[in-house]
Amino acid sequence: MGSTSDLPVMEKAADVLNDFEVPFEIIALSAHRTPEEVERYSREARDRGIKVIIAGAGMAAHLPGVIAAQTTVPVIGVPIKATLDGWDSILSILQMPPGIPVATVGVNAARNAGLLTIQMLALSDSDLMKKFTGFKEDLKKKVIRANKELATVKKYPYKTN
Amino acid sequence: MGSTSDLPVMEKAADVLNDFEVPFEIIALSAHRTPEEVERYSREARDRGIKVIIAGAGMAAHLPGVIAAQTTVPVIGVPIKATLDGWDSILSILQMPPGIPVATVGVNAARNAGLLTIQMLALSDSDLMKKFTGFKEDLKKKVIRANKELATVKKYPYKTN
Amino acid sequence: MGSTSDLPVMEKAADVLNDFEVPFEIIALSAHRTPEEVERYSREARDRGIKVIIAGAGMAAHLPGVIAAQTTVPVIGVPIKATLDGWDSILSILQMPPGIPVATVGVNAARNAGLLTIQMLALSDSDLMKKFTGFKEDLKKKVIRANKELATVKKYPYKTN
Amino acid sequence: MGSTSDLPVMEKAADVLNDFEVPFEIIALSAHRTPEEVERYSREARDRGIKVIIAGAGMAAHLPGVIAAQTTVPVIGVPIKATLDGWDSILSILQMPPGIPVATVGVNAARNAGLLTIQMLALSDSDLMKKFTGFKEDLKKKVIRANKELATVKKYPYKTN
Amino acid sequence: MGSTSDLPVMEKAADVLNDFEVPFEIIALSAHRTPEEVERYSREARDRGIKVIIAGAGMAAHLPGVIAAQTTVPVIGVPIKATLDGWDSILSILQMPPGIPVATVGVNAARNAGLLTIQMLALSDSDLMKKFTGFKEDLKKKVIRANKELATVKKYPYKTN
Amino acid sequence: MGSTSDLPVMEKAADVLNDFEVPFEIIALSAHRTPEEVERYSREARDRGIKVIIAGAGMAAHLPGVIAAQTTVPVIGVPIKATLDGWDSILSILQMPPGIPVATVGVNAARNAGLLTIQMLALSDSDLMKKFTGFKEDLKKKVIRANKELATVKKYPYKTN
Amino acid sequence: MGSTSDLPVMEKAADVLNDFEVPFEIIALSAHRTPEEVERYSREARDRGIKVIIAGAGMAAHLPGVIAAQTTVPVIGVPIKATLDGWDSILSILQMPPGIPVATVGVNAARNAGLLTIQMLALSDSDLMKKFTGFKEDLKKKVIRANKELATVKKYPYKTN
Amino acid sequence: MGSTSDLPVMEKAADVLNDFEVPFEIIALSAHRTPEEVERYSREARDRGIKVIIAGAGMAAHLPGVIAAQTTVPVIGVPIKATLDGWDSILSILQMPPGIPVATVGVNAARNAGLLTIQMLALSDSDLMKKFTGFKEDLKKKVIRANKELATVKKYPYKTN
Repeated sequence: MGSTSDLPVMEKAADVLNDFEVPFEIIALSAHRTPEEVERYSREARDRGIKVIIAGAGMAAHLPGVIAAQTTVPVIGVPIKATLDGWDSILSILQMPPGIPVATVGVNAARNAGLLTIQMLALSDSDLMKKFTGFKEDLKKKVIRANKELATVKKYPYKTN
Repeated sequence: MGSTSDLPVMEKAADVLNDFEVPFEIIALSAHRTPEEVERYSREARDRGIKVIIAGAGMAAHLPGVIAAQTTVPVIGVPIKATLDGWDSILSILQMPPGIPVATVGVNAARNAGLLTIQMLALSDSDLMKKFTGFKEDLKKKVIRANKELATVKKYPYKTN
Repeated sequence: MGSTSDLPVMEKAADVLNDFEVPFEIIALSAHRTPEEVERYSREARDRGIKVIIAGAGMAAHLPGVIAAQTTVPVIGVPIKATLDGWDSILSILQMPPGIPVATVGVNAARNAGLLTIQMLALSDSDLMKKFTGFKEDLKKKVIRANKELATVKKYPYKTN
Repeated sequence: MGSTSDLPVMEKAADVLNDFEVPFEIIALSAHRTPEEVERYSREARDRGIKVIIAGAGMAAHLPGVIAAQTTVPVIGVPIKATLDGWDSILSILQMPPGIPVATVGVNAARNAGLLTIQMLALSDSDLMKKFTGFKEDLKKKVIRANKELATVKKYPYKTN
Repeated sequence: MGSTSDLPVMEKAADVLNDFEVPFEIIALSAHRTPEEVERYSREARDRGIKVIIAGAGMAAHLPGVIAAQTTVPVIGVPIKATLDGWDSILSILQMPPGIPVATVGVNAARNAGLLTIQMLALSDSDLMKKFTGFKEDLKKKVIRANKELATVKKYPYKTN
Repeated sequence: MGSTSDLPVMEKAADVLNDFEVPFEIIALSAHRTPEEVERYSREARDRGIKVIIAGAGMAAHLPGVIAAQTTVPVIGVPIKATLDGWDSILSILQMPPGIPVATVGVNAARNAGLLTIQMLALSDSDLMKKFTGFKEDLKKKVIRANKELATVKKYPYKTN
Repeated sequence: MGSTSDLPVMEKAADVLNDFEVPFEIIALSAHRTPEEVERYSREARDRGIKVIIAGAGMAAHLPGVIAAQTTVPVIGVPIKATLDGWDSILSILQMPPGIPVATVGVNAARNAGLLTIQMLALSDSDLMKKFTGFKEDLKKKVIRANKELATVKKYPYKTN
Repeated sequence: MGSTSDLPVMEKAADVLNDFEVPFEIIALSAHRTPEEVERYSREARDRGIKVIIAGAGMAAHLPGVIAAQTTVPVIGVPIKATLDGWDSILSILQMPPGIPVATVGVNAARNAGLLTIQMLALSDSDLMKKFTGFKEDLKKKVIRANKELATVKKYPYKTN
């Protein structure tokens, strides 16, 4: 992430990885304040065994794109809302030029970045795929359960003629 | 893709896959006009051996999200510019709710969607990773070569190096 | 509605239907988390005697369009403001492609969705039309009454030369 | 429609109504240039047997809202793109205040306005409902047919491993 | 104004008129809820001796345009911020079609609407022009005085080498 | 106007003034390139007998506001579309700070600026008011005439049950 | 700055100049309320030895451009967020017409305006350049230090397989 | 510049530098395709005697910010319009985080970037300052001359001075 102040948003990605028992590291690197560290990190990532990089940043959010420029590891970008309702970071991450993709998720959507990571890793890890399939089932059940509670709410003369 | 009229944009993804010799299929499915086909396609994708789905659509672009809802395969979304300068499709694809990520690329950026697919597949395919590493080198050389041509342009008289 | 968290917005539609004594049901179905339930609900709607569907959702709000794709019943879409000041849900609902209309109302305007439902049903229900005509009269009277109170406010040297 | 210059957009609604053999009239009335005519038209609409009004207008598009204010007939609004990429007419039609809904469709989406009209009328006209059900089937077939043609295109080494 | 809830914004216009001792009336009329009252008010305005109309409204703000359509009196429009950060009311008021101008001021800028009214009336009222000239002098003095206070603030080593 | 390149837009205001036989002058002054001329012009305007100033400019359009700052004459601002679809000039003119109003019309709406001028001048010129009243009648007739032509178009089975 | 109410934002620029021991003055001048003062200030700036002017303003923010028009000293513009999330001041400052540049920084980014000033002055002041080089080193160290603290956080099973 | 395709926009900056006889070099470097070259260029810039860097780029335009991160030389950013009407490059350049300013000019405003460079260099070069002062005089004369031509245009009959 671009700054430790992004931690409250980005830790939702960490939560997902913990839930799926996928090892990870979480560090703050700034495309603008620590460019050499970003470069070194990006270049060494693959050799260190890193499979996917989730990069979150706000404002003119260059971190995801700058990392993607210097590694072959897929990069997931999380636009963080800091100013201008997040439009600046959305566009700075999403609109990468031809040749250097960043897999962008919604504004502050670190949780979805974590899940997308799982999906990428599960391509070659059948245990993880099984867990992810289970996760999708749970999502569905939660809505159905919520729906049942809703049905018992007395306020609405709930009726299915 | 949501409609065959999206082909001129989406075939840039096909070009990338062809270049990297990755087998693929290209079909038109509409989240709104052929919902059952989308559902069937999404559900069967993994068992048919599909590893990544690239979904492009314009306007209220529901296709990528609707597919992502029904498969565990990672989905890459390509917002296609049809109306409102593409803002409608960008937001309809990017801003997926928690639990169902779509890896979104820039507006009309089908080429980047193709490259992101290669990166995902290369996670467990070292030959593909080698090709992708070569591709990144070529990108760089192209800019350097273009730069040399620029240096020989006579129009600008001044040079300090 | 896409999630039970949308209830505080959507219950204004329920209030209108209650006021007009129109039977209804209120459930949470997510285009992304419970796609089959959405499909089943949409397909069975007409046979179950449902005349109009009001669908509210936020972010990349696919629910109204996905329902509209799978039923002949008219669908009213309520963009719910969750992120980006509601622009994402507005565009995801409003900009449906040719062939699959969604009758969209303003952001968070569930009350108006309820009233639009009444107008549709009143097309073939003269009692309801009478009630709705009364409602419009009341709207007018409320403004006129408010205006009279305003006229008695002492602050302004209210003068109609 | 607000002006005869809107005819090229709005006639797509007329085409739909013709296809479904629903009688209609098409006139130009301006909320700003002919306010009394708009008022008279709106007030007399129901008694003249009009069931649904489709109102299209561009810029500060007041016509749909002004009609909706003066009739109990449901009003469908079509934002016409004239300036500012259509954002002015979208917001002028969509964001109606509580109490006066306008069923808004996408920018220039007159065809969808026609279809929404059919859906509303079909609520109490089973023949029309049958035709509309047929129309939805045709939509689907068109995409599937287009897809088959796509499959025969030689350019892509179309492969379904 | 479109609703009595707009009073906190609109009373700043009243304050200006009071300051300049210009008689006025303040009423709530809704383009959508009380269309006939708006019509009657607009048509009778000139004969009642009204010189300028300030109309404030939020959301799809039709009031200023609808009044302007039905009177020859100049209309000043005040977009009131209610939803979407005020963009809806700005565009609904500003983008009037050719033939029916509304003199639009900034979002919530009722005070400026009051001052613009004074300027219009002062065109044929030399006393009012004198007062307005005085007002402009005062504006300037206030900034200069504020500046002097700033100069005495100790925090900055304020230096004019 | 800010530049002679704005003439094609601004001459529509001149056309209106010619039609109403109101004397005027048309000049190019740039808030940024000729600030002293703008200042002199603004300060002398009232004494030279100028009643209303129409100022059109594009991009960061400061001309209307800068003139308004230096004269008591009412200033009408015309945002000219040059870049960013006109959003820059709209906001640079509309959002004037408290104390210095500019009567803003729509983007490129020089014709409406001319008409607003007529309305302001007509406040103390009954002949002009008569002409303006006639103009409004003509506007209406034009729409009604256009409507009749529309009614004779054979394409639509135009029917008024 | 345009108004003393902008002080809480603009004093971050003052803090930077203090830190680098660069003498400065801070005053409030309004392009609209005190145009002559702005003019005099701008014209005399260079002769008074002023090297760089930082101008901050909100809404239709004309101050930076109006100063730039009347001096040869480089002007840095700070868009201040007051209304419309700051879009009005961004566009009013950034989109200057050809010939009159304003060096614009991000919304409310007075600190960056201060740093940009240092960079400009350091072009001909090697001591200042040395200090600025030190400042950049410190920026980097701060991120690295923050990162170390992050690494010690127990929450994440921080692991670099 | 980020790509040789940006040359038609960026050469306007070169034209300005040529006009003022300021030596310069023009090269293409991509923050994403040639990150090491960007790094080397940025780090060596000051020692090579470079005083100001103008960086233009489109889309997610990281080049200006990435250069600014790695040099103490002031960086002027030119947002180039490529997609989304230029909003993506504006925000990617303008909204730099605290500590790393980029002096941003308007969209495609390379000419203004050249002039801003002249102003920065003229801070310590009195000859250049003299030329720049002359340039500003010429700007003014051009408008005044254009104005005289306008005055002789026969189209507008009315004149009061």
